[in-house]
Amino acid sequence: MIFKMIIAYDGTNYGGWQNQHNSIGIQSLIEKALSTVLRKPTEVTGSGRTDAGVHAHAQVAHFSFDDGVHLPKLVISLNALLPKDIRIRHIEKADDDFHARFSAKSKTYHYHIHSFSDPFKRHYSYYVHHKINLPLLKEAAAHFVGTHDFTSFAHEASTGSASRNAIRTIHRLDVIEDHADLRLEFEGSGFLYKMVRNITGTLLDISSGKIPLSTLPDIFAAKDRTQAGKTAPAHGLFLAQVNYASTSFKDSK
Amino acid sequence: MIFKMIIAYDGTNYGGWQNQHNSIGIQSLIEKALSTVLRKPTEVTGSGRTDAGVHAHAQVAHFSFDDGVHLPKLVISLNALLPKDIRIRHIEKADDDFHARFSAKSKTYHYHIHSFSDPFKRHYSYYVHHKINLPLLKEAAAHFVGTHDFTSFAHEASTGSASRNAIRTIHRLDVIEDHADLRLEFEGSGFLYKMVRNITGTLLDISSGKIPLSTLPDIFAAKDRTQAGKTAPAHGLFLAQVNYASTSFKDSK
Repeated sequence: MIFKMIIAYDGTNYGGWQNQHNSIGIQSLIEKALSTVLRKPTEVTGSGRTDAGVHAHAQVAHFSFDDGVHLPKLVISLNALLPKDIRIRHIEKADDDFHARFSAKSKTYHYHIHSFSDPFKRHYSYYVHHKINLPLLKEAAAHFVGTHDFTSFAHEASTGSASRNAIRTIHRLDVIEDHADLRLEFEGSGFLYKMVRNITGTLLDISSGKIPLSTLPDIFAAKDRTQAGKTAPAHGLFLAQVNYASTSFKDSK
Repeated sequence: MIFKMIIAYDGTNYGGWQNQHNSIGIQSLIEKALSTVLRKPTEVTGSGRTDAGVHAHAQVAHFSFDDGVHLPKLVISLNALLPKDIRIRHIEKADDDFHARFSAKSKTYHYHIHSFSDPFKRHYSYYVHHKINLPLLKEAAAHFVGTHDFTSFAHEASTGSASRNAIRTIHRLDVIEDHADLRLEFEGSGFLYKMVRNITGTLLDISSGKIPLSTLPDIFAAKDRTQAGKTAPAHGLFLAQVNYASTSFKDSK
């Protein structure tokens, strides 16, 4: 029997979803709690990795277990064992062929930006010093929507090999104003390593005037990470939603 | 020359506004930064203390210094020296007789409550397990508005002596629904030590059915802290605003 779980986590204190050399991953902590509660070594498969410091409102993972588990009790037991910065929001029975990664149709990431220094946002939003040029930012964002070769916005380490396929589709890149703050909403069928943060950094470099908007087609065409802008920091990024064909879990926020 | 400063801080990692035996206070850190930038030992007087773990959107403090300081630069220099969980929001010249504590007419505190476990609220809102009875909570809150003897809601240590005056006026205690969350807004001319947290804990005990609403007049009359409800934890509490007769700093949130 396959079960689907929805997880929220504050990534501040973790090396990411997966174990890293020096730090324990969120996945491992959930596997440990699940194995304790179910009294059986249990593996958890996530929809994908999130990097060190990246947060999730609704990461999705699946695990396999016998039927007959009381799911609301399981959620309570897991949350009692897990640290308070990792919360299981929901567990439900899934189709037998459900796979958190392979069944995902698209993912939604949110990148949070603020321009007035605020101690309560320091771990959850990127503090940008320059005055954001909103019309320019929106115009630049529109260039990323659609199917493109995103090599120039992939992580340096993954651009070495020309054989890697860096063609991805961004369905939506919305620039949302939320009071004095900004939120970039990315929805796409798949994202390269650090792609959301590299696009965000490039958009902010365009907003600040460091990169002229007119050079954006050349940056895409160069297929060279060094031509694009900086990498925005991890702490502004949230995995907001993983979308599946059948039962898409709606974030209540 | 007297200067007035507005400070926001995340109280999570501090023993409170003032120094405690084992932990450094926020006030000391600001005094240290100010003395460094102004090259002169400079004391800072706050509008009042906040306890360990309590936050502030807009604490107010004053200090004395010579004229001729460039205030926007001073804000930037102080924030460069201060830890990121303490931010100076604003500094302005004040009247010569301005005193952050004695000139304050009233203060506004917000107490945040949430009922769905959320890793991003764990340091900034109190997670309440029981389903909140909102009409009952609002009815109970109305009993606290006005001028009363709040001995039953004062800190245990300060209720021993009958000579202490525990009469205070609460101008406003609003129960605000914010999506799935709750915010209790207290505005009053003065608050006893832990009074906001003791009132909040009592209101939640009434909501959960632990304390019958009908006994509230007896609890006030008993002038006995042990008759009232629990003390709500510090991390849900924010000093939201300090109100002065002339120039009241409006929180932009």
